[in-house]
Amino acid sequence: MKKDINAEIISVGSELLLGQIADTNAQWISQNLAHMGINVYFHHTVGDNYDRLKSVMELADRRSDLVIVTGGLGPTEDDLTREVGADILSQQLEIHPQVLTKVESFFERRGISMTENNRKQALVFKDGKVFPNEEGMAPGMFVDHMQKGWIFLPGVPREMKSIFSKSIIPFLKERYPFKNQIVSRVLKFIGIGESILEERVSDLIRTQTNPTIAPLAGEGEVTLRLTAKAETAEEALSSISNVQEQLMQRIGDYYYGRNDETLEQKVLEMLKSHSYTLASAESLTGGRFIDQLISIQGASDVIAGSIVGYQTKIKENVLHIPDSLIKKHGTVSEQCAREMAEQVQRKMQSAVGISFTGNAGPDASEGKPVGLVYIGLKIGDQDSVVKAYQLNGSREKIRQHTVKKGLEWLFYSLKEMPEK
Amino acid sequence: MKKDINAEIISVGSELLLGQIADTNAQWISQNLAHMGINVYFHHTVGDNYDRLKSVMELADRRSDLVIVTGGLGPTEDDLTREVGADILSQQLEIHPQVLTKVESFFERRGISMTENNRKQALVFKDGKVFPNEEGMAPGMFVDHMQKGWIFLPGVPREMKSIFSKSIIPFLKERYPFKNQIVSRVLKFIGIGESILEERVSDLIRTQTNPTIAPLAGEGEVTLRLTAKAETAEEALSSISNVQEQLMQRIGDYYYGRNDETLEQKVLEMLKSHSYTLASAESLTGGRFIDQLISIQGASDVIAGSIVGYQTKIKENVLHIPDSLIKKHGTVSEQCAREMAEQVQRKMQSAVGISFTGNAGPDASEGKPVGLVYIGLKIGDQDSVVKAYQLNGSREKIRQHTVKKGLEWLFYSLKEMPEK
Repeated sequence: MKKDINAEIISVGSELLLGQIADTNAQWISQNLAHMGINVYFHHTVGDNYDRLKSVMELADRRSDLVIVTGGLGPTEDDLTREVGADILSQQLEIHPQVLTKVESFFERRGISMTENNRKQALVFKDGKVFPNEEGMAPGMFVDHMQKGWIFLPGVPREMKSIFSKSIIPFLKERYPFKNQIVSRVLKFIGIGESILEERVSDLIRTQTNPTIAPLAGEGEVTLRLTAKAETAEEALSSISNVQEQLMQRIGDYYYGRNDETLEQKVLEMLKSHSYTLASAESLTGGRFIDQLISIQGASDVIAGSIVGYQTKIKENVLHIPDSLIKKHGTVSEQCAREMAEQVQRKMQSAVGISFTGNAGPDASEGKPVGLVYIGLKIGDQDSVVKAYQLNGSREKIRQHTVKKGLEWLFYSLKEMPEK
Repeated sequence: MKKDINAEIISVGSELLLGQIADTNAQWISQNLAHMGINVYFHHTVGDNYDRLKSVMELADRRSDLVIVTGGLGPTEDDLTREVGADILSQQLEIHPQVLTKVESFFERRGISMTENNRKQALVFKDGKVFPNEEGMAPGMFVDHMQKGWIFLPGVPREMKSIFSKSIIPFLKERYPFKNQIVSRVLKFIGIGESILEERVSDLIRTQTNPTIAPLAGEGEVTLRLTAKAETAEEALSSISNVQEQLMQRIGDYYYGRNDETLEQKVLEMLKSHSYTLASAESLTGGRFIDQLISIQGASDVIAGSIVGYQTKIKENVLHIPDSLIKKHGTVSEQCAREMAEQVQRKMQSAVGISFTGNAGPDASEGKPVGLVYIGLKIGDQDSVVKAYQLNGSREKIRQHTVKKGLEWLFYSLKEMPEK
């Protein structure tokens, strides 16, 4: 069919509105619909209340071509989705024999007498289609209502996903023989501000419609999501690649990876390809820098270790920073950062030594303002280099941002080096 | 006010409809509103599209007393929430001087020229209230529109939560002096399995209606949420305290803190009260244990530092674990853990030395199975003690669980000691 399908997802359950659980169903279904080329325009969550649920379904009937309702198909009196659905879609409810048998035998097997309300789970729409639920009681259902498709699924994620994967996806592909596949790719950039990056490509962001280019806010980095629609995944990918090339010509210098690739992985790969080992000396970052690298599998090939010298005496006794240097310049200083990087490289006999010292707050110390951070870097027998940063935000944010800055600097330093 | 407040939460962002991220904001806000006695009747998610966003806001204006909108306040052209809000609420937008100064100085400090679109983040509603954003640029806002409250917040969870906790909660409590107060308290337990704990108090969980007792799954710990409803917060709190007493009589031995109190904080406080300093020697935890303690303000009084010896040679050269010991027992061994704890205590001249070594996976090493972990603890001149654990799950899960086990052991060891 030529026309785009505009879908909406309705999640039913008071526990969602009380914040007791997060609505992961809507996200999961949205991902799957996107891949089938179905636009999701709305998520709507409503509690177990007849009138409000009815108003939400009526709205969906007016504005969407395909409505997917999850939740409210259970046995309790709170579960109203069937009743409201029958009302809105002028459907009758009838007992589905096989489902009833299934529910009954479930209780028999457990030697529990089945209560009347459990029969409810076998109620289906008279003119609807029924999709078996291999993980639970209530089946999935489909109703065609004036050219609009209505799908009903249980709210338990395991049951919903099972029915959706086994039955709904094939069913939708058959009902809507899409000309469209949607594919997206995330490009990740570091070392350039969100606004500057966007300025450089704003004309592409504005003019590109397929793929579309959407900037996403990241933690100390910038990402662009390219989403393409085409008859085949291959076509979509190639149009993504074309636009990616144009983007790379302008901001390729700041590109570090795509999709799930992380800066930590990239740095680790680069260290490997240079057959470098790395050691860190950490004060305000408190071991977080090395932890984030060690989190990655295979880190042991390149990550030697770290000396976390949080208290000054450790900087003196373990890292052997001359106490005269600390007296003169303080621990939050270019000189201390340089010495820390050189000392840890020496002590751990690593190719790379990187150091972090600064004031994460909450108060000024040594007369140094909150957010003043020094990162020292010593690679091989090159002279050590120290960079100063003035970061802001909470203690947590400053510490995390410092780690990111260290990764960013390492990334660019290693990038510029000829591989062995 | 007598009347109940019916709220709705609008989440703005196409990435939500593409299923690229889950809407955790709506859940978090719902929890907080519930505790204030505000009913949340709807969650509504819409993309970065002017007309659809407008239709969603118009609907909210018709059906809800309080509307909380998150997302779409950023600097990019996609960010339309301000513009649509001004349209719906017939508000003018004006530059907020302090916010603009903040945005400008942010760029100055980085020596980056601020692009025009960033001024957008300083645009606020002319007749609205502005709530500072300590974690980012765009502030929170409130507009009173025909007796209906509209709150606008950034979509970045860290920023949203910070503004909501610091400004919105007090603001709402003043604006809506509720008849019914809902108060809840979370009790945290460590060192007891979820099912065993629940078994011990199952009768209370079943019979208690005000406060209700709800077990929550925790990361390697068990928590109970007590939620009470009363005319005043005082009444609610006293009924919570009564039930808490009954619970404590049965499971008080495992209690460590309430609400936002963390095990890290508790351990830090106990170290302080004993005037102990602590140092760690970390292998598989890679600095994460010390990082989690240093994350807490005031850690520098008691946390000396850490030696992260990820590669074996570091254990030998920096931690001075005899290479004969490693040859004989391997690095994943009781002997190595003991030596690491004693060595780091000595090297860092700290009262407490704690060590972590083990196999986080993915493969067996030294013939030691994945998940085999040794933690060594040396306090003052007491004999060092080593505990072995067989943990399971992913590499990440094993490393995090190991950190938790270390905190748990420290907590109980310090608890049993007479304070100085």
